Amino acid sequence: MASAEIERLVQILARLPGLGPRSARRAALMLLKKREALMRPLAVALEDAADKVRACSQCGNLDTQDPCVVCRDPNRDATIVCVVEDVADLWALERAGIFKGRYHVLGGVLSALEGIGPEDLNVAPLVERGRAGGVREIVLATSATVDGQTTAHYVMERLKGCAVAVTRLAHGVPVGGELDYLDEGTLAAALKARRPF
Amino acid sequence: MASAEIERLVQILARLPGLGPRSARRAALMLLKKREALMRPLAVALEDAADKVRACSQCGNLDTQDPCVVCRDPNRDATIVCVVEDVADLWALERAGIFKGRYHVLGGVLSALEGIGPEDLNVAPLVERGRAGGVREIVLATSATVDGQTTAHYVMERLKGCAVAVTRLAHGVPVGGELDYLDEGTLAAALKARRPF
Repeated sequence: MASAEIERLVQILARLPGLGPRSARRAALMLLKKREALMRPLAVALEDAADKVRACSQCGNLDTQDPCVVCRDPNRDATIVCVVEDVADLWALERAGIFKGRYHVLGGVLSALEGIGPEDLNVAPLVERGRAGGVREIVLATSATVDGQTTAHYVMERLKGCAVAVTRLAHGVPVGGELDYLDEGTLAAALKARRPF
Repeated sequence: MASAEIERLVQILARLPGLGPRSARRAALMLLKKREALMRPLAVALEDAADKVRACSQCGNLDTQDPCVVCRDPNRDATIVCVVEDVADLWALERAGIFKGRYHVLGGVLSALEGIGPEDLNVAPLVERGRAGGVREIVLATSATVDGQTTAHYVMERLKGCAVAVTRLAHGVPVGGELDYLDEGTLAAALKARRPF
């Protein structure tokens, strides 16, 4: 049908999350129509990021410099470390703009189904950070899924013996959430953790 | 938050159809994780297609060679030409694999709202193809939308005086479609064009 070059582009685009074969074809056509405005800048941005972006040796965040922009910032509180599954979660917390400490990226969650064990996660460097002193609190901000909570428990076990307070995110009603759409687990957690008004 | 290189990549990805800011961030992270397997091949495929793919001078299809693979094929019937809005429609018909003639890509539809007039469409070369002889039938396969049908009427007007039969796609119940989900226009068209069983 289309030439090998277009087919190859469509196949690679279809592997991106959020794009299937049909939307990959639409994306390829749009790119070919906007060659100088979109297609070549995308190719350059890809090469550029592939060359320059690396994982921060301290926290695992992605940045062009090591240590990353968060670990470099002297205005951030180095005594509190927020443990997240993935860089996407770090970005989400940074967009919220409410956390002013440092991070630690695990690089995934324990998952029996997907065969991800403790040795696949970036836990040992976290324990080292906890032992080295200078950190007074570690906030476990893994997902509220079974795998996320299993991982949180595992990390807490590993942190035993470190002189740090280990906390986790609150469960409850999401802001803007309607009660009758929430599951029983969330409602139970929100009621149990009710606070004075 | 993230470095300028990542932000730039996310911004460009978010302009692709089917990707918003959130899925563009997910795509960027996935690309950064699969740098050699996905990110660099995508950059190469983009540059490659941007360099080599061009519009066919006869029909407007996209291919690395001119005339394109369809216009080059001696086994296809050059006496019947199917007029489509866009290369995506040509690809859709080719995937169906039922049309064995040639194509003509208009490059859009007439649209008062979007300010697309007759001079923006690739109509003159189609009239030339009709006049030159050798074509006996032109199938108008524009969308069954108001703009698509307006465009079909306009093209038919322009083809008056050419010694070709002008036809259009049948309207009716889509294969696999359920009657109670169809609009009245489609049902009326299907009933009017009913055929012996």
